[in-house]
Amino acid sequence: MANYFSSDFTLGILGGGQLGKMLLTETRKYDIKTFVLDPSSDAPSRLACNRFFQGSLLDFDTVYNFGKQVDVLTIEIENVNVEALEKLEEEGVKVYPSARSLKIIQNKGFQKQFYAQNNIPTADFFRFPSIEELKKAIEDSHIRFPFVWKSTRFGYDGNGVKIVRSFTDLESLPKGECIAETMIPFKNELAVIVARNLQGEVRTYPVVEMEFHPEANQVEYVICPARISDTVAQKAREVALKTAEAFGIVGLLAVEMFQTQEDDILVNEVAPRTHNSGHYSIEAAYTSQFEQHLRAILNLPLGKTESKLAGVMVNLVGAEGHTGEVVYQNIEKIMAMEGVTPHIYGKRETRPFRKMGHVTIISENVVEARRIAQEVKETIKVISN
Amino acid sequence: MANYFSSDFTLGILGGGQLGKMLLTETRKYDIKTFVLDPSSDAPSRLACNRFFQGSLLDFDTVYNFGKQVDVLTIEIENVNVEALEKLEEEGVKVYPSARSLKIIQNKGFQKQFYAQNNIPTADFFRFPSIEELKKAIEDSHIRFPFVWKSTRFGYDGNGVKIVRSFTDLESLPKGECIAETMIPFKNELAVIVARNLQGEVRTYPVVEMEFHPEANQVEYVICPARISDTVAQKAREVALKTAEAFGIVGLLAVEMFQTQEDDILVNEVAPRTHNSGHYSIEAAYTSQFEQHLRAILNLPLGKTESKLAGVMVNLVGAEGHTGEVVYQNIEKIMAMEGVTPHIYGKRETRPFRKMGHVTIISENVVEARRIAQEVKETIKVISN
Repeated sequence: MANYFSSDFTLGILGGGQLGKMLLTETRKYDIKTFVLDPSSDAPSRLACNRFFQGSLLDFDTVYNFGKQVDVLTIEIENVNVEALEKLEEEGVKVYPSARSLKIIQNKGFQKQFYAQNNIPTADFFRFPSIEELKKAIEDSHIRFPFVWKSTRFGYDGNGVKIVRSFTDLESLPKGECIAETMIPFKNELAVIVARNLQGEVRTYPVVEMEFHPEANQVEYVICPARISDTVAQKAREVALKTAEAFGIVGLLAVEMFQTQEDDILVNEVAPRTHNSGHYSIEAAYTSQFEQHLRAILNLPLGKTESKLAGVMVNLVGAEGHTGEVVYQNIEKIMAMEGVTPHIYGKRETRPFRKMGHVTIISENVVEARRIAQEVKETIKVISN
Repeated sequence: MANYFSSDFTLGILGGGQLGKMLLTETRKYDIKTFVLDPSSDAPSRLACNRFFQGSLLDFDTVYNFGKQVDVLTIEIENVNVEALEKLEEEGVKVYPSARSLKIIQNKGFQKQFYAQNNIPTADFFRFPSIEELKKAIEDSHIRFPFVWKSTRFGYDGNGVKIVRSFTDLESLPKGECIAETMIPFKNELAVIVARNLQGEVRTYPVVEMEFHPEANQVEYVICPARISDTVAQKAREVALKTAEAFGIVGLLAVEMFQTQEDDILVNEVAPRTHNSGHYSIEAAYTSQFEQHLRAILNLPLGKTESKLAGVMVNLVGAEGHTGEVVYQNIEKIMAMEGVTPHIYGKRETRPFRKMGHVTIISENVVEARRIAQEVKETIKVISN
């Protein structure tokens, strides 16, 4: 085993947002040397890394030159120059997740095809090189309203996804490559994080439930454990595991899934990294997803994925009508509630719906944690001063 | 309330060792701006603070000039220039713990007198301006062997404390001010961490047990909860609380105590800061001692002090016969054990008995955690390569 601890071994992280920042908590805990690349000069990960590089994650040379200086390279965001990663892999840099996995995941068309090829259950879909081709398919009655449109490239947090009910809905969409997916009238949106190290040791975290705002298309609460039957939970973990094995992932794979009305599990999409649905694990799990990601990519033994307690996570997003220097109104009120821990990502400027932080609520009882989470959500406001 | 989060508010920390480093994990979590002062250029807290200042903690001007740049000043080590803190307080800087508390605690003679004045139970003692005066008291039969000698100034980790059984034992001791304390044939050494904020909200952590190596005078395991009766635990928490209230502490007060053969509780010594006996809380408690210290000194509501699970902490100290660049031999073996988390402080050089890190073991069952802790201790070795 390489000597990672208090040594010259260097881990490179592409992306310096909140996921990178929370990963740095763990590299500090283990005293592992880190280099971070991010386009923003005041990225949340600027502090706590050993060296910060400002530069584009999509530029071949920038990513390549950064990667040449590290021993293991990982990501906190998928939108990185994958050709540079391929070249780095050829030249002996260890890249986790692999360039191959990233290439498939970056393109939602490839991703869906991959599921089909590997017998991973997913909603039916068709791929179109352009919106025009999609329109033609509708006119020819190959596709019927309503369906789910997804851009194949670079969508995140609900961007690049839209429910299409009429031709009018198509007008505002980007013109490029897309897929049309059967709309699933699901009971629940679930997620499972799978950790896998180089020697193939694999562990799944408990199933979490993503509870959406009834109107806005935004995750309001992530609830662990999901309030579902053991049978459905077991099935979800098996599907997630199968997906991670199919990718041969090294690191984490966050698998988002639908639980259908018939209690089938369909994979919606995956992320080969730490994930919003796993933030609860910092306080609630034996091993946080961030520590687990490190263990996995460094080929260390994986930690226990079980929970110490139930956990509910609430995202802190910028309030509508507020742009400018952030103030976390009533944060002291939520800190007085039982088992409540805010995480502030360190973005000085708030904007409507910008992810500014999250709050974890832990309790012996998931119903109680969910109740307090609602109180938290109704109390704290991310505004500008 | 001041706006601490993602703002220009600045917290100053005197000392940049492992306690400071673990505190920085929490300031990063809350995005609180920090300045750190430490004499060593490669202090563990050098990373993750906003600005690092290299300089002496005992020099008046250095501490004063550092303190003038911050809004709230705290410590991770007691041995700091307290006159500078007094001046800073006069000039409106908030210093927690207060200069007054630090002044009492820095001198073990003052500390013992303080307990006597405040009816806090402690072992009987006499104070002597020099070893010569102590010898005279022995010759005059005012003091009898065996007793515990303590230097009044700047001892830590067992330095400055010695059991004296004969005149010969006195020969090697420093000549300065000291106390002679009745030797207590205790059943257990216990500790309680008390948190108190400016508005007087106060919480105590559960009682922990410090299990010593039968031969070496070093804490081997810190065990939470202590394996003692509820009555004794209750008494220990009350004594700790009374001690913290007597100091009017703002921040944390770690109170080390003896449980006598008669199940009385005697205060041994205190530290007005985060403490080795509270490291278990990072993984095992609802609120880690480091987060709690922040909450207390910023006058935020205190977090829940209860444990999620049982926790046992093992110190990682440099092995005898090893000096030089550190290697954590078998660290991957202990990481494969259930519920085991190593913390590596980030000191490149090991020396015999140097505190290099600690390991926390959590489990639903304290006996199981203690069993695994022993396995950990027998497996990992801190050596040089």
